[in-house]
Amino acid sequence: MRAAVLHGPGDVRYEERPEPTIIEPTDAILRLSVTCICGSDLWPYRGFNPVAEPMPMGHEYCGIVEEVGRAVRSIKRGQFVIGSFGASDNTCLHCQAGYQTSCAQRQWVTGAQAPVLRVPMADGTLVPTAEVPSTDLVPSLLAVSDVLGTGWFAADAASVKPGATVVVVGDGAVGLLAVLAARHMGAERIIAMSRHAPRQKLAREFGASDIVTERGEAGIERITELTNGVRADCVLECVGTSESMMQAIRSTRPGGSVSYVGVPHGVALDGAELFFTHVRLHGGPAPVRRYLPELIQLVLKGHINPGRVFDLELPLEQVADGYRAMDERRAIKTLLRTS
Amino acid sequence: MRAAVLHGPGDVRYEERPEPTIIEPTDAILRLSVTCICGSDLWPYRGFNPVAEPMPMGHEYCGIVEEVGRAVRSIKRGQFVIGSFGASDNTCLHCQAGYQTSCAQRQWVTGAQAPVLRVPMADGTLVPTAEVPSTDLVPSLLAVSDVLGTGWFAADAASVKPGATVVVVGDGAVGLLAVLAARHMGAERIIAMSRHAPRQKLAREFGASDIVTERGEAGIERITELTNGVRADCVLECVGTSESMMQAIRSTRPGGSVSYVGVPHGVALDGAELFFTHVRLHGGPAPVRRYLPELIQLVLKGHINPGRVFDLELPLEQVADGYRAMDERRAIKTLLRTS
Repeated sequence: MRAAVLHGPGDVRYEERPEPTIIEPTDAILRLSVTCICGSDLWPYRGFNPVAEPMPMGHEYCGIVEEVGRAVRSIKRGQFVIGSFGASDNTCLHCQAGYQTSCAQRQWVTGAQAPVLRVPMADGTLVPTAEVPSTDLVPSLLAVSDVLGTGWFAADAASVKPGATVVVVGDGAVGLLAVLAARHMGAERIIAMSRHAPRQKLAREFGASDIVTERGEAGIERITELTNGVRADCVLECVGTSESMMQAIRSTRPGGSVSYVGVPHGVALDGAELFFTHVRLHGGPAPVRRYLPELIQLVLKGHINPGRVFDLELPLEQVADGYRAMDERRAIKTLLRTS
Repeated sequence: MRAAVLHGPGDVRYEERPEPTIIEPTDAILRLSVTCICGSDLWPYRGFNPVAEPMPMGHEYCGIVEEVGRAVRSIKRGQFVIGSFGASDNTCLHCQAGYQTSCAQRQWVTGAQAPVLRVPMADGTLVPTAEVPSTDLVPSLLAVSDVLGTGWFAADAASVKPGATVVVVGDGAVGLLAVLAARHMGAERIIAMSRHAPRQKLAREFGASDIVTERGEAGIERITELTNGVRADCVLECVGTSESMMQAIRSTRPGGSVSYVGVPHGVALDGAELFFTHVRLHGGPAPVRRYLPELIQLVLKGHINPGRVFDLELPLEQVADGYRAMDERRAIKTLLRTS
């Protein structure tokens, strides 16, 4: 098969790779009709993470089960399934507590920008739908796999409650879907920080009540002003840089919550400063598996349409163009068709 | 009057100072029969915080109201009152949310190692008892003012719930009273980290079920072992160093909570490491005012006896000996009599 492989900064290739096969008896093999590019794929693409050897890319997926290992019980051939980037047994104590991305047997899924994917611990990792969904729903179900699940965790980890004033830092696909999640959880006011018109528009569609274009100190001042000097109850940090993290912390009221869901790059928090802000901090790799059953139902019932974040669609063979468009912020998120 | 003044590292003097008087109409003047030395007083005493000019010491207090400013409404002359190191109006939105140490008008109280003390915003800061309590209860009421209130916040900020497994890092007076607080909140298992026999004994009296003497990596391993590989639900960090903070974070299960209540000294948290631990972090200067009414009642009814942390009692004129004893860990906490 041909799939996306990153060879170094800016160098993603559509090239021949061996088709995955069952390795462990708990594996499943999926055929993917669509796949996509994640904002986090841009870290190695931009050279912020080292690429020691050619790296098969992609970790967001849904598709049809083609084969299962002999130890797989609940997942069947022919089912349409959705999984998370963190494969998990879904039975250990961390999984039971809802932290499947800290599963005792956790494995990171990779190589999903391809027509065929091997998923470890299929019974724990994958959630099947009752029927194969119609094609128009597939982009939204693909979004559930990571970008929506991560935005959802951002809202949940910041304890968004009915009536809350919420700030979302970051207007990438995760940030936009964090807006959607906060709206679903009943936030009264949702302030999206964005200076890009198409993203502002989508933020409003997803439920943002205010847009703030200022950043850094000016952004914090604007939030303080908009909240009558109190600052926000919940701030969802969806970028992962030092600037965005500090902006999030300083926009939060004492006793309020900051969540952070993108792998921090170059972030060092000063203990004494954090201490005097009185904020609550929670985040990490989103335990998307926790939310899959609920989010899949919300999509199937048409209550949410997270697939709206895909504003560029390309055949997989043009994957390099998809990376470029996201890198240059011409696209929010790229959907890739495998056939 | 004569009172304790720090002139530089290790140099605390009992010397003449002007007796405080009403400055603002919202002030109260208290006469203190006992006062005490805080673990946090050791930071400047040990030279970790700079002492730019002679610094009146002490911020834990209870006593009899001697005078009130003309704008004071609820506090009366002759009342026995208890307050916190953070003076607060107790009406602003941060106070209403229970974060009085982030009060919009916050002032830090200082100069309480003295027979007479000025307290700002008396109506917001002070809580009176119905009657002047008997002398034997006064040490426990003095403890409520900071060390118990801070230990209580440690347990509350780490969301200690009935059945929880709790670790307390730090066997100073705050750590020991955090054990008491965790027990009161229904923790099932309380692991106190201590290598000092008298502190271990008091930790057990206050409700610790286990004592761990190992520190750093060995301490984390021991906690992991004691919790069957899961680690603790709640870890209460009551020291404020980088070592203790990292030990706390690494002893916590994914989704578990770390609280920190001592001003961090030299603590820098690596964002990426924190991210992958999946812990919740909350702390800051304890909003003791939030807990005063409840804690005062618990003491008056004899349900708790936090004054047990005072294991050295001296006249105020020997304040320098009190600092020395705590600095050398010969005393857990020093009570000072002003007459």
